[in-house]
Amino acid sequence: YNIGIEFEKIKKIEKIGEGQSSVESSQTIEKDEKLPKILLLSTGGTIASKVDYRTGAVTPALSATELYEAVPEIAKIANVDAEVLFSEYSENLQPEHWLEIAKKVDSVADSDYTGIIIAHGTDTMHYSSAFLSFALSGFKKPIVLVGSQRSSDRPSSDAASNLIAATKFLRRYSAKGVFVVMHHNESDKAIACHLGTRVRKNHTSKRSAFETIGSPPAYVIFENTIQDNTYKMENKVSRDYNPRINLDTKAALVKYHPGFDPEIIESLIKLQYRAIIFEGTGLGHVGKTMYDSIKKAKEKGIFLGMTSQCIDGRVSMTVYESGRDLLDMGIVPLETMIPEVALVKAMWVLGNSDSDDEIKKMMLEDYASEFFTE
Amino acid sequence: YNIGIEFEKIKKIEKIGEGQSSVESSQTIEKDEKLPKILLLSTGGTIASKVDYRTGAVTPALSATELYEAVPEIAKIANVDAEVLFSEYSENLQPEHWLEIAKKVDSVADSDYTGIIIAHGTDTMHYSSAFLSFALSGFKKPIVLVGSQRSSDRPSSDAASNLIAATKFLRRYSAKGVFVVMHHNESDKAIACHLGTRVRKNHTSKRSAFETIGSPPAYVIFENTIQDNTYKMENKVSRDYNPRINLDTKAALVKYHPGFDPEIIESLIKLQYRAIIFEGTGLGHVGKTMYDSIKKAKEKGIFLGMTSQCIDGRVSMTVYESGRDLLDMGIVPLETMIPEVALVKAMWVLGNSDSDDEIKKMMLEDYASEFFTE
Repeated sequence: YNIGIEFEKIKKIEKIGEGQSSVESSQTIEKDEKLPKILLLSTGGTIASKVDYRTGAVTPALSATELYEAVPEIAKIANVDAEVLFSEYSENLQPEHWLEIAKKVDSVADSDYTGIIIAHGTDTMHYSSAFLSFALSGFKKPIVLVGSQRSSDRPSSDAASNLIAATKFLRRYSAKGVFVVMHHNESDKAIACHLGTRVRKNHTSKRSAFETIGSPPAYVIFENTIQDNTYKMENKVSRDYNPRINLDTKAALVKYHPGFDPEIIESLIKLQYRAIIFEGTGLGHVGKTMYDSIKKAKEKGIFLGMTSQCIDGRVSMTVYESGRDLLDMGIVPLETMIPEVALVKAMWVLGNSDSDDEIKKMMLEDYASEFFTE
Repeated sequence: YNIGIEFEKIKKIEKIGEGQSSVESSQTIEKDEKLPKILLLSTGGTIASKVDYRTGAVTPALSATELYEAVPEIAKIANVDAEVLFSEYSENLQPEHWLEIAKKVDSVADSDYTGIIIAHGTDTMHYSSAFLSFALSGFKKPIVLVGSQRSSDRPSSDAASNLIAATKFLRRYSAKGVFVVMHHNESDKAIACHLGTRVRKNHTSKRSAFETIGSPPAYVIFENTIQDNTYKMENKVSRDYNPRINLDTKAALVKYHPGFDPEIIESLIKLQYRAIIFEGTGLGHVGKTMYDSIKKAKEKGIFLGMTSQCIDGRVSMTVYESGRDLLDMGIVPLETMIPEVALVKAMWVLGNSDSDDEIKKMMLEDYASEFFTE
């Protein structure tokens, strides 16, 4: 942990002994057989951190015992089996980790678990939720990613409240799909449950950093009630479970800006990228300076998709000349998909098809409510 | 303009003659010598578009006469001299255009204009406002960029209301700095005036697409009153006017995501970039997979700055191991600067210094309230 000491005032630093870790490994806790069964997978992150005050070491704490110690309320709501998948802050999670999580979740598709909770660092939680949404589209149980912005040793920690809310949600709702559960506002009493394909981390430090783009969160979980906002959304998640746990990372996200050097597109062509997702300006534009490199990328068979760096709203490429030019060059407008989700979807689609036509078709098909209907 | 016709129902398309453009060139309008003088520069964009219904052509309409016809209210508030600088949708404006606008504004630094209005496309208006904020830091009159999301031939057009509000603002306030004036919400009655270094286009199509990040807009302009929110901000814009109208576009914006290929950094090194602004995750992180390429970039003397793709909030690189690793590698945390502004500032700084130390110092110095104090 970080403590501040005035450097000038330090007289002597001496090691007075070696501490022993007080964090115990996994143990089974007593279970109430009437309660629903939940699987809790830990991938790391602040929510899975526990500070050992003797050694100062941060360790993943979400073994069953540790969980029981940290958040005893959960045992009254559900029987939780806990498993540590890995122990990484989420800026270090890579697409290979997504595959591993997805395979683990797929392995319990036919189990008697009511749902799955995945403890996850917040930095890239929305990227992981997007991948799981696509790879496990149609999964028959809810999959809930939970993170925390403040570690459990801080009075303002949101770790326990978010975990409890996620458990309550799984007990009450059998909604299919992948969700992200985090604080809804500055209060501890309202926890948002976001669709995994419509959520973004929009603040560096606030507990309510995560927001659903373009609509309220799917659910808001209060002490004794859950507000269901899904009537505002088309219920699109009604497909059969057909896991496709594959990806190809040869998809790039390119944010256009004045002065953007088209040579960067040429570099992506050289690096054999198979898809470029543009974060265009406004309704989905890039400057004319980009046209030659875009044509070249198209000739190489690279899938070119357009999202907007505005983040919120729909791209619409027939309104202005620039948009129509880009449509003529074969850029595919990705409607209301947010840029990060479009990128993850492109990686997933590339991992599941080699056909240009099918790649385009899959990019435009709604697999997991990634297209928001305004 | 776009009209929709069912293709199958078209029997015949015949050209029945050649229309004449009804758009007249610039004329002087009658002026009331008691009113303040304002210079209106047009760069193009939706706000400067006028549809000629006979020819269907879209032309820049903001000559003095056209302006008077389109928004007669303005002549009662101020004497406006209008000049067309160029006529481009703003996705096609490049840093060279920023230089041209800045030079034009600088040329009237000692004139009797009360302020300057710049009509501008909305796609990249916030990039232009950031550049002008830096290049013309300390300019003695307010500079206001005005755009519109809906063209003036549509009933919901925001062109007139935004222009009128900007003119009112210049008449009432002599606030130094660069501002962006657009709708504050869905009403026509509240127009926001954003700081040019803290504003972002956050929706593709809403009239209130522009938002100040991290605080309310500096001012909100109502029918008969102006709400001043600047007491919440430190008034940092108090430097002498010292125009530095230079830039170097060898600055790249790199958004980190899981699966980001460090080869892209190698490509930027090969392309001789002088600065890389990272849009890191969360508090300002990138994955360990990036470390080698970051070290290489640092060895080449490339300035490395960190912002957050969360957009809102402060980067804070001492909280987690990843942040501390990156600090050790020489990445400079850019506090609360939003990514696009940090990019534009880097271009400006590179154009004004060749010294590594000075580049770092300038990136961290507040020139135009680009750092928001929470």
